[in-house]
Amino acid sequence: MVPAKFLLDKKREGRALGSLEIREFVEGFTKGEIPDYQMSAMAMAICCRGMTERETADLTDAMMRSGICLDWGGVSAPTADKHSTGGVGDKLSLAIQPLAAACGVAVPSLAGRGLGITGGTADKLEAIPGYRCSVTMERFKEIVAEAGVSIAVQTDEICPADKKLYALRDVTGTVASIPLITASILSKKLAEGAGALVFDVKAGAGAFMKTPEEARELARSLVSGARAAGRKAAALVTDMNAPLGRAVGNANEVAEAMRILGGEEGGAVADLSVELAAMMVSLAREIPIEEARELAAGRLADGSALARFEAMVTAHGGDLSRFRKLLEKPTFKFKIQAMKSGYVAAIDAEKVGCVALQLGAGRERTGDRIDPLAGINLEVAVGDRVSVGAPLATLEKSFDPDGLEKAAGELFKAFLIAPAAPEARGLVIERVEEV
Amino acid sequence: MVPAKFLLDKKREGRALGSLEIREFVEGFTKGEIPDYQMSAMAMAICCRGMTERETADLTDAMMRSGICLDWGGVSAPTADKHSTGGVGDKLSLAIQPLAAACGVAVPSLAGRGLGITGGTADKLEAIPGYRCSVTMERFKEIVAEAGVSIAVQTDEICPADKKLYALRDVTGTVASIPLITASILSKKLAEGAGALVFDVKAGAGAFMKTPEEARELARSLVSGARAAGRKAAALVTDMNAPLGRAVGNANEVAEAMRILGGEEGGAVADLSVELAAMMVSLAREIPIEEARELAAGRLADGSALARFEAMVTAHGGDLSRFRKLLEKPTFKFKIQAMKSGYVAAIDAEKVGCVALQLGAGRERTGDRIDPLAGINLEVAVGDRVSVGAPLATLEKSFDPDGLEKAAGELFKAFLIAPAAPEARGLVIERVEEV
Repeated sequence: MVPAKFLLDKKREGRALGSLEIREFVEGFTKGEIPDYQMSAMAMAICCRGMTERETADLTDAMMRSGICLDWGGVSAPTADKHSTGGVGDKLSLAIQPLAAACGVAVPSLAGRGLGITGGTADKLEAIPGYRCSVTMERFKEIVAEAGVSIAVQTDEICPADKKLYALRDVTGTVASIPLITASILSKKLAEGAGALVFDVKAGAGAFMKTPEEARELARSLVSGARAAGRKAAALVTDMNAPLGRAVGNANEVAEAMRILGGEEGGAVADLSVELAAMMVSLAREIPIEEARELAAGRLADGSALARFEAMVTAHGGDLSRFRKLLEKPTFKFKIQAMKSGYVAAIDAEKVGCVALQLGAGRERTGDRIDPLAGINLEVAVGDRVSVGAPLATLEKSFDPDGLEKAAGELFKAFLIAPAAPEARGLVIERVEEV
Repeated sequence: MVPAKFLLDKKREGRALGSLEIREFVEGFTKGEIPDYQMSAMAMAICCRGMTERETADLTDAMMRSGICLDWGGVSAPTADKHSTGGVGDKLSLAIQPLAAACGVAVPSLAGRGLGITGGTADKLEAIPGYRCSVTMERFKEIVAEAGVSIAVQTDEICPADKKLYALRDVTGTVASIPLITASILSKKLAEGAGALVFDVKAGAGAFMKTPEEARELARSLVSGARAAGRKAAALVTDMNAPLGRAVGNANEVAEAMRILGGEEGGAVADLSVELAAMMVSLAREIPIEEARELAAGRLADGSALARFEAMVTAHGGDLSRFRKLLEKPTFKFKIQAMKSGYVAAIDAEKVGCVALQLGAGRERTGDRIDPLAGINLEVAVGDRVSVGAPLATLEKSFDPDGLEKAAGELFKAFLIAPAAPEARGLVIERVEEV
């Protein structure tokens, strides 16, 4: 084995590491033989010098192999999963995974808990009383076999190298690196074992990637990495300047996802849900995208998509009647209104996310407790016309109403009201299918 | 205090850190509040992104302030020191520091122990029976006051941040960085407190800097950093493709330095010694360099330079009569001879250094024991004409003669004998006085 310091020299000089070198470095780090101070220096060198596609694929593979890899040979349907890089109000996984399952695809989906302004799918689901995201990987497989879809959190058996490396990157200024982000996302998705992967890479104020260019680069890297590992893959770069949909929080986002699944919610968010689900179905079942779109739209209309969601919730121990009661529980509310007439020209997703976090909808630190009812309900969308006094949004929390008014003042700043209507733009910025 | 991860982000992005940010980062690291994994990531970011002159000066200052700084206000003579970046056979400090002292300059000189192929001045001096390089900083000051010159090793009170950082850089591939090398060398020299600093930056196969361009960059960085800290400074870039002088080892290098000090040794090495000592004297005493050169040449001729050396040795507990006896002690020897006639076109310093290390003249690992009599005596210099069978060098060691022949075979490869005489080149590649 080549001593770690020589591999550090090599990467510092901008040279590509060999496949075996990468594998041994990751294995050594996982076992604790390569100390944190060498791994953090390597992460910084990768941030500064980059990695080739081949190196990124090797890094992904090595991280995937640090833990167990799930096998779906026993499931007859083709498997697929969708991953979003995360945004404010992004409840799409809650709708898309059951929708794809209703279209004849098995969906094993390991999700994360939230940190910072982007909420976690697992936290949202756990707003449903009884829903347990933390299940064994055996139970996860059973639920996928029974309900066709499961959204769970990964156990420590999946990609332990990623968990260890991510914790280190978080405190060493080494998060911002396309190869490292690719390996982190992809190693978990590969270990999860789905045969087709769709990536929703968010770009904008409320996302980690601030510009479409950065998002495109990540999307291409993810698709190319997934294909190098023998998976079918495609990606969309989508807008995350304004929050996604109406609800930002946990219970309210689940309710919105259920409205999408029941076909009650129209507009851009429902359209994007259908599109991403259709991409999963098209890739996994090898049918044309137009056919998959039609199929998905039908499954929303006939109630089978919502039924898949309900079956998944039940299998995870969740109780939707108790959830409906929870939604009716009295909370402290504060409404903000337009101070002038005009058009909603922008809603700053980052500001909205910060206020939701402040209200208790997310975690500033790992281990912080979440208030499932805390959050924001937007009453307008970008492009809407408003008059003076029209409601813009409602802030909500379960307890401790102090600070609600201050938060409302912050939230007010997220809205830009302009005299003219903004240019209408769809959510999809770019499709990444060929790389 | 700004959290370390934000400073890491800043440097990763190639932005300059503020003076206070650098000071707090170094202080935090010295106290153990900033863990090794953050410092190693910062070192890698500095390697990849560089530092401005101002940042390098701030880093140097912060590292200097991590320990005590010596004050020479009680010494009437102006103070100066010379630092060499290290090479094979580089015994110049042993000659230059006493020579400058003989010219009316007080010379406080903290030297390092050797590691790898470049020997350490302290190890060479300790080949003299009784010489103790490890003295308290109080005793160091007394010796400078009494003998005009002291060569000692720094205690842990001097630049603890540098010691801690260097150990980390050594295992994280972050040695190769002009700002980090500058801060490491200069922080110790500034803490040592001499008012004038002369740097001998080596370039070539036997030095850390392989090309004159890299060496020039380091020389400029050192001179500019020293001046930013209010010291007088100048540097030479000198050739280290061939070993410096005839002896490579420890006791034999001391003997060669004493011959230089006694005026018995002519040629390039003696000339370079006079030049560097004259630069110290010229800077410290503010006299023209020509006058300083004449003064230094006179001090070699009149015996006062050697007398300074003897006074320093005595003050450090060394016994030169026992040293002379040591030199006469029988050793295992092996002589290598020219296999063809011609001119010595090159002597590979790196190969010679490796063989000397192998014989026991240096340390492969910290803590390895050194054989003071082990080493190589070159019988020829680059440019000499040799006939078949003429002696090229003698290898020597005190015990365990096994491997002597194998080492001789290696050493033989260091000599390039060519039909034509090589172009005559002086040791000085460049003078760095203006930056």
